[in-house]
Amino acid sequence: MALNLYDKEEFFQKYAQMPRSQKGLAAAGEWHELKKLFPDFREKAVLDLGCGYGWHCRYAAEQGALRVLGVDCSQKMLDQAAAKNSHPKVQYQLGDITQLELPAGAFQVIISSLAFHYVEDFSRLVENMKRWLSPRGELVFSVEHPIFTAQGPQDWHYGPQGEILHFPVDNYSMEGERKAVFLGESVKKFHRTLASYLNTMLDNGFTIKRVIEPTPPEDMMELPGMRDELRRPMMLLMACKLR
Amino acid sequence: MALNLYDKEEFFQKYAQMPRSQKGLAAAGEWHELKKLFPDFREKAVLDLGCGYGWHCRYAAEQGALRVLGVDCSQKMLDQAAAKNSHPKVQYQLGDITQLELPAGAFQVIISSLAFHYVEDFSRLVENMKRWLSPRGELVFSVEHPIFTAQGPQDWHYGPQGEILHFPVDNYSMEGERKAVFLGESVKKFHRTLASYLNTMLDNGFTIKRVIEPTPPEDMMELPGMRDELRRPMMLLMACKLR
Repeated sequence: MALNLYDKEEFFQKYAQMPRSQKGLAAAGEWHELKKLFPDFREKAVLDLGCGYGWHCRYAAEQGALRVLGVDCSQKMLDQAAAKNSHPKVQYQLGDITQLELPAGAFQVIISSLAFHYVEDFSRLVENMKRWLSPRGELVFSVEHPIFTAQGPQDWHYGPQGEILHFPVDNYSMEGERKAVFLGESVKKFHRTLASYLNTMLDNGFTIKRVIEPTPPEDMMELPGMRDELRRPMMLLMACKLR
Repeated sequence: MALNLYDKEEFFQKYAQMPRSQKGLAAAGEWHELKKLFPDFREKAVLDLGCGYGWHCRYAAEQGALRVLGVDCSQKMLDQAAAKNSHPKVQYQLGDITQLELPAGAFQVIISSLAFHYVEDFSRLVENMKRWLSPRGELVFSVEHPIFTAQGPQDWHYGPQGEILHFPVDNYSMEGERKAVFLGESVKKFHRTLASYLNTMLDNGFTIKRVIEPTPPEDMMELPGMRDELRRPMMLLMACKLR
């Protein structure tokens, strides 16, 4: 399972200190864009793949979803979800999103935030999602941007004074495993090209509705490091719909 | 007009020495991918925006197009097109693709190779293309990749021995003019994000059919520099269709 890192106490303690863990959606720099991509949740059955703390599950429920299933492979994450984001319409389930078995056509909407770059076989996941969705079902997801995952280390290139010079891209067309450092731990991720993300959706009967490379909202721009996020794309958001 | 650079004698002489100028389609590293995106040209009226030497115009005619209009703003380019790629079904016209006036619905297919990154107002161009196309018309184009245009100089970042370290990305989210060096001349180009390219198409009623970030074909891989093209995306190819 890709993500049992999140069950390592030391790593999880650091993750728990991140603004987005402490404060939820309002502290996530991409939330103002992701929110706009979400479809109308009213009366919909919603699946959240890699739900983490469950912020999006609760949001979907509060927006009128019929029921929400949040799946994550970390029990520590789900404990936080239960503590912070319980809702009568939301069910949390421990599981690896790549091993999940769910009834066909059971959901009208699938959402996923920053989970798919941990998945090695994206095609297989998209085939599964297609099966789990009902006709004309919708999928909205965010991943680390292919430019951000290409080289591996996911760090800026610095000058002699430690100043940021630019963001380095390398091995872009070579898809596969990368070792990044996140919160001081080595993390295994999978790099895919942008064309792969788009064409895998198209090949599985999805239409592309919107693609966003989010920049931080104005009111976050003065936080440390935020303005540098204009210099490279860090995340890729995509809204798709089954034909 | 963006491209009168191509009418500068010194620049044009250098351009004329490039393999793709000398040998045409077979010498263009992306041709094997672009070709696959082209629709069936039989009985279609085809417009080629920024046709250059006219290689694609002649190809479309040879594939059975009813008529092909190739437009370019460089008379030197069109002289070469007339000399190398004349065909009874192909007409070449001198003109700036951003100032062009054409009848509505006159074409079933629009193609364009490596021209749109010279265009400042992409939205306006896409609105025009939508008008020039008939219902369910198709558009296939290539541009320099947003990763390639982001920083400006379009050169690798080198180590102390002059070896390539990686490709630098900077100012990605700041769209607009860039000064690149191409064949020893300063060239004005316009950087746009990948999301801009995709969403401008979507906003104008196109569906995305395919997106390709081409890598060189196997039989070119041993040519100087070709293997390095796996390290960064240099071109973006897109096939779209009016809904």
